[in-house]
Amino acid sequence: MVKLVLIRHGQSAWNLENRFTGWTDVDLTEKGEQEATEAGEILKKNGFAFDLAYTSVLTRANHTLWNVLHALNLTWIPVEHTWRLNERHYGALQGLNKAATAEKYGAEQVHIWRRSADVQPPALTQDDERYIAQLNDPRYAGLTEAEQPLTEDLLDTVDRVLVYWNKEIVPQIKAGKKVIIAAHGNSLRALVKHLDNVSADTIVGLNIPTGTPLVYELDENLRPLNRYYLGENGPLDKEVLPSAETK
Amino acid sequence: MVKLVLIRHGQSAWNLENRFTGWTDVDLTEKGEQEATEAGEILKKNGFAFDLAYTSVLTRANHTLWNVLHALNLTWIPVEHTWRLNERHYGALQGLNKAATAEKYGAEQVHIWRRSADVQPPALTQDDERYIAQLNDPRYAGLTEAEQPLTEDLLDTVDRVLVYWNKEIVPQIKAGKKVIIAAHGNSLRALVKHLDNVSADTIVGLNIPTGTPLVYELDENLRPLNRYYLGENGPLDKEVLPSAETK
Repeated sequence: MVKLVLIRHGQSAWNLENRFTGWTDVDLTEKGEQEATEAGEILKKNGFAFDLAYTSVLTRANHTLWNVLHALNLTWIPVEHTWRLNERHYGALQGLNKAATAEKYGAEQVHIWRRSADVQPPALTQDDERYIAQLNDPRYAGLTEAEQPLTEDLLDTVDRVLVYWNKEIVPQIKAGKKVIIAAHGNSLRALVKHLDNVSADTIVGLNIPTGTPLVYELDENLRPLNRYYLGENGPLDKEVLPSAETK
Repeated sequence: MVKLVLIRHGQSAWNLENRFTGWTDVDLTEKGEQEATEAGEILKKNGFAFDLAYTSVLTRANHTLWNVLHALNLTWIPVEHTWRLNERHYGALQGLNKAATAEKYGAEQVHIWRRSADVQPPALTQDDERYIAQLNDPRYAGLTEAEQPLTEDLLDTVDRVLVYWNKEIVPQIKAGKKVIIAAHGNSLRALVKHLDNVSADTIVGLNIPTGTPLVYELDENLRPLNRYYLGENGPLDKEVLPSAETK
């Protein structure tokens, strides 16, 4: 049995401002930093250690991982950064206030963009300054033009996360490495969907809480034997993940 | 011309307590964290960016690097951790108070251990709990028994730093990568000694200040064209490094 730990970044500045973030690079708030440190402390208290960590190329996830590893005295382990663990790309909605977007497009349309697995928000246009900034960002210098998203639905995110999961992470876990992944609401939904074989319609309803370690106990074929949130007040989401518990 | 940046970790808890640290894993003080953040800010103000970072497996250097990269919005670049960039191993003196050590062995003997290039402090014995902890530390699981130091003089440190420098770092710099190295007083002395072809007797007198970026401008054969400390109050050490300036 191997344990895999997933952790969603702590509160970010735009969570607080109620704006669509996606690939926009915003940092944690002080509360978010604190959440991440507490997650590291509870992992330590429960005897967790890691050989290898994975994270996105977005500051809020990197910062969360740093605080977790610092609390665990594991600042020296290898960390792999990949755009494939980034948040879902939110297209032309990135940066917009959620309430203002609901006024403009209607609450129902926004609900559809947020809670459908296969409906993309409006795409960035090629001349949008946000897309130009993305193309010029050295984080994304290694991507082909076909890989550069202009928008994504959740299933697009699932697809690009799983490419990396299967190619890079699975071999390490099968080789016995203890792995932690610090990422985002939707890139972690992608992993939960895959691990627990959850339908697309169901996974969009799963709300993974920020800064709370989600532990998967996996058999040798990486099939889940058990999954639980660590933390005295760790939330349950039994509708979506019927076997999830809190320890 | 390529620029290489070296940075010694900020103030650590044991710098403050005046104890021999070596491979003991102590963290930065708040002042040390602040020094590192300021180093990142001044690098940013001067237009520096990096493709790749190297650091030791000791928390104080990792923490310094994190603060620097965070200030630069470069939390996502690859970071390589290696024991070969660790501080000089201080043998049986590790953990001892420097003043108490001077009382016990005499000030002159302590001066010799600190300021000779080729005199090792007393070695840890195989049954010393500090050595047993080192052997059991997962940071050092990849070392052969011959590689596990029991003590080092500065030339021992130079030797093991240069193995890594030549094998791992030089090819990356020659391939055009912009590199930053966050390490320790003696592992950085090793690099300065090599780059500037400084004699062993002279290099022991070089005091690299904490948390201050030391910029080397190198030609295509990695010979120094120029070197300077970044920072308005960056110190000079012209006795040892006659061409060093402050920008």
